[in-house]
Amino acid sequence: ASSRRWRGVTRIMAEASSSSSTAAGTPINPSIKKQEAKVVDTVLISDLRKPLQAYCRCWRSKTFPLCDGTHAKHNKETGDNVGPLLLKK
Amino acid sequence: ASSRRWRGVTRIMAEASSSSSTAAGTPINPSIKKQEAKVVDTVLISDLRKPLQAYCRCWRSKTFPLCDGTHAKHNKETGDNVGPLLLKK
Ligand code: FES
Ligand code: FES
Repeated sequence: ASSRRWRGVTRIMAEASSSSSTAAGTPINPSIKKQEAKVVDTVLISDLRKPLQAYCRCWRSKTFPLCDGTHAKHNKETGDNVGPLLLKK
Repeated sequence: ASSRRWRGVTRIMAEASSSSSTAAGTPINPSIKKQEAKVVDTVLISDLRKPLQAYCRCWRSKTFPLCDGTHAKHNKETGDNVGPLLLKK
C-alpha cells in the first residue's frame, strides 16, 4: 500500500512539474484588472506624444498598459524571454 | 521517518500548486523566438495601413506580434483574462 501511495504522489508531482515548465494551462496575468473578462487596451495613434513608447506584454508592469521594465525581473526569475511592443513615430 | 517524509512531500506539492495558480515563477511565452534573450517588436506608426490593428499580448498567436484570436482559447483553458493591444488610427 505504501508503494502504491508513492507512485500516486510521483505522478501528481510530474504533472505539476510539466505544467510549470511549459506554462500550459497557467494564467499569464496574475493581477491586472482581474474583474474584467478580457483586458483590451486601445492606443489612439494620433494621441501618441513621445517618439518612442513601450507597451507591456508581460502583464507585470505597475504602469500597465505601458512597460515599466518589470519584464526584466520576470525573465530573470523564470528563464523567460518576453519584452515590450515598441511604438515608434 | 515515514511521517517526516510525508510532511516534505506535502510541502513540495503545496509549492507546486501555489506556483501554478498564481503563475509566479512560470514563463509566459511557451514558444515564440526562444533563441532570443528578449523578444521586442517595433511598430513604425507611419507604416500602419489598417484603421485598427490588434497586437498580441498572450504570446500564443500564430501571427505574432499580431493577434490572431488565440487569446480566447488560452483564457478559456486557464481562466485567464488577457487580450490584445489595439492600435487605432
Ligand atoms: S514591464 Fe511588461 S513588458 Fe516591460
Ligand atoms: S492572440 Fe495573443 S492577444 Fe490575441
